[in-house]
Amino acid sequence: MSTQKVEIFDTTLRDGEQVPGCKLNTAQKLKIAARLDEMGVDVIEAGFPVSSPGDFKSVSEISKLVKNSAVCGLTRAVKKDIEVAAEALKHANKPRIHTGIGTSDSHIKYKFNATREEIIERGATAVAYARKFVDDVEFYAEDAGRSDNEFLAKVCTEMVKAGATVLNIPDTTGYCLPEEYGRKIKYLKDNVPGIENVTISCHCHNDLGLATANAIAGVMNGARQIECTINGIGERAGNTALEEVVMILRQHPTLDLNTLIDPKFLYDTSTMVSREMGMLVQPNKAIVGANAFAHSSGIHQDGVIKNRETYEIIDPAHVGVTESAIVLTARSGRAALAYKCKKVGYELTKLELDKVYTEFLNYADDKKEVLDDDIHEIMELSRKKNIAIA
Amino acid sequence: MSTQKVEIFDTTLRDGEQVPGCKLNTAQKLKIAARLDEMGVDVIEAGFPVSSPGDFKSVSEISKLVKNSAVCGLTRAVKKDIEVAAEALKHANKPRIHTGIGTSDSHIKYKFNATREEIIERGATAVAYARKFVDDVEFYAEDAGRSDNEFLAKVCTEMVKAGATVLNIPDTTGYCLPEEYGRKIKYLKDNVPGIENVTISCHCHNDLGLATANAIAGVMNGARQIECTINGIGERAGNTALEEVVMILRQHPTLDLNTLIDPKFLYDTSTMVSREMGMLVQPNKAIVGANAFAHSSGIHQDGVIKNRETYEIIDPAHVGVTESAIVLTARSGRAALAYKCKKVGYELTKLELDKVYTEFLNYADDKKEVLDDDIHEIMELSRKKNIAIA
Repeated sequence: MSTQKVEIFDTTLRDGEQVPGCKLNTAQKLKIAARLDEMGVDVIEAGFPVSSPGDFKSVSEISKLVKNSAVCGLTRAVKKDIEVAAEALKHANKPRIHTGIGTSDSHIKYKFNATREEIIERGATAVAYARKFVDDVEFYAEDAGRSDNEFLAKVCTEMVKAGATVLNIPDTTGYCLPEEYGRKIKYLKDNVPGIENVTISCHCHNDLGLATANAIAGVMNGARQIECTINGIGERAGNTALEEVVMILRQHPTLDLNTLIDPKFLYDTSTMVSREMGMLVQPNKAIVGANAFAHSSGIHQDGVIKNRETYEIIDPAHVGVTESAIVLTARSGRAALAYKCKKVGYELTKLELDKVYTEFLNYADDKKEVLDDDIHEIMELSRKKNIAIA
Repeated sequence: MSTQKVEIFDTTLRDGEQVPGCKLNTAQKLKIAARLDEMGVDVIEAGFPVSSPGDFKSVSEISKLVKNSAVCGLTRAVKKDIEVAAEALKHANKPRIHTGIGTSDSHIKYKFNATREEIIERGATAVAYARKFVDDVEFYAEDAGRSDNEFLAKVCTEMVKAGATVLNIPDTTGYCLPEEYGRKIKYLKDNVPGIENVTISCHCHNDLGLATANAIAGVMNGARQIECTINGIGERAGNTALEEVVMILRQHPTLDLNTLIDPKFLYDTSTMVSREMGMLVQPNKAIVGANAFAHSSGIHQDGVIKNRETYEIIDPAHVGVTESAIVLTARSGRAALAYKCKKVGYELTKLELDKVYTEFLNYADDKKEVLDDDIHEIMELSRKKNIAIA
């Protein structure tokens, strides 16, 4: 089997931007959109044009700017939303309208106060109406994660008939387990006539910490688009993180799936989005966190110094991080200390190292990190205790 | 099938604490250990006693303090390490020694410069030696995630014979996919004689964002202990997050698995660990992030106001968060605006709301968040434009 392409649909500027405190102005959005285009994102969801005049303007300006990516605007299954989105997208090279409606019993009852039949009718009308404006229409079955699979297959069947080119199966509340979400995608693959002519898309939320795993389960079961955001930002606990799915597919060639994203942009793009939105990335964030490639424990440092692949599966340079930062703390071992000592000019014998290491541990127990300057002080303290240093 | 217990092995104070910048003093460690004990953690990995005098002291003091949890100390497969750990644990009600050695070809070759036979020999010797000091000995097969399953089964078989009570199968580099990690656990269940008498433990790293999903795949395939940390901190991209696995098992009763953790401590414990270590929790962190229960987009807010379960699967109060914070931004809809207006004293008719909403959007486009005070200003601006407000 030859490697199949998984499309990356980035919704940093829509699902990510609608988060408390993450609002961007048009200039900021254009800067991020240009980068997403440059790094190889297939579809940029630029906003929800009907939601505010500022958002309309941003989608419109992004449509003019972006060269390679498709540009997508979100709508409800409402005529006015679709008309406004079409207008905002009119300058895009590859415009896509993303429309849809809730399909879980909870959404049908509490959000729409409607019946299942009415939901299908409203969805199909919206898809057909959107197709009057653009050739590429994605349908979202909101809360698909908690929707009955048989009904969901019926919804998808009708949306394909109405002209949808992409079927988005969102786990809106972040409830599914990977195995369960994968089974749902497989059920649709097996039970929706004509599904072979459209792209199935995974849109997963991270309420239980499973957004990335669910998206991967989706593509392992036949989906060919992943909706994601830089740093996994988005409503509540966020969405699937772009950098994670891109690197999972690259690191697991036996899946025979890959994306067009150039990973060397990942770290810098993470920093750009974090800075523009003021949304911190925790140090232990996969791929792009400050500690993702740092090694501080003695055992680990010893391994990495002997052979990087002992503890690192990804070469940091591949994602734009220039070196594995070896950080000295009270948990560091002799190998890390010797490595740092050598770096600042001290070549120690094994016996010297043992003695300096004892001094280092006392010193380090009171500090969070031992920096290069501290090494000189530790050497001075060792000398005062008559430890011979070459 | 009746619900089976999954043991929670917290390694915040060992794998979490060995991270750059996360070092704690003994008083801080005691504070966190007391909380872990109180919230129902089965095993507290308190440190790596041989690594430094400070760490020895912390393990020793925690052993005296903790009432219900087992207290565990890490060692290499080295006599001296085991003796020092036994000494540090001597006051514990339920002491456990955690010893082990690398079992992947990469670790055997680059880290130990040994043969497979020598690795088994060293591991078994360490387990047997540790059993001279304590009844509860956990063996870790480091880099099990990249170890050959057949060899790993052989290692596990010998460790059970040598007296191990728990077999820890770490995905040390965070490389595995959930399906692959689950298959590995199942392979061991099926191929290690006597494995029914010991507990299989999952220790997963988050380098690809899959630590939580892998641990869940592990328990779905027969493991009965999860090693995890508060906030998912730990080496590099961290470990499985305690709060995530606890809530996944609670939210998925059909798995018939549960833990003894009282979830009402989750949010406060997250805050405590973050504060003591100075390790930020990103706003979009699952379960405990500041935005995990915040709703800002109009569509979502409308749904939550009608019925919380439309978008939230977890009642925030269950994890110690006192209310779903509704935050107004330029992405918010009429329902959220009406809700907030009502909260600060304005009951609007539908027509009034439409007009005030237009004013709100202009106002909000320039701001990150619209606070209660801003609402009064928006109402004043609306009044000046002769919008009649009741």
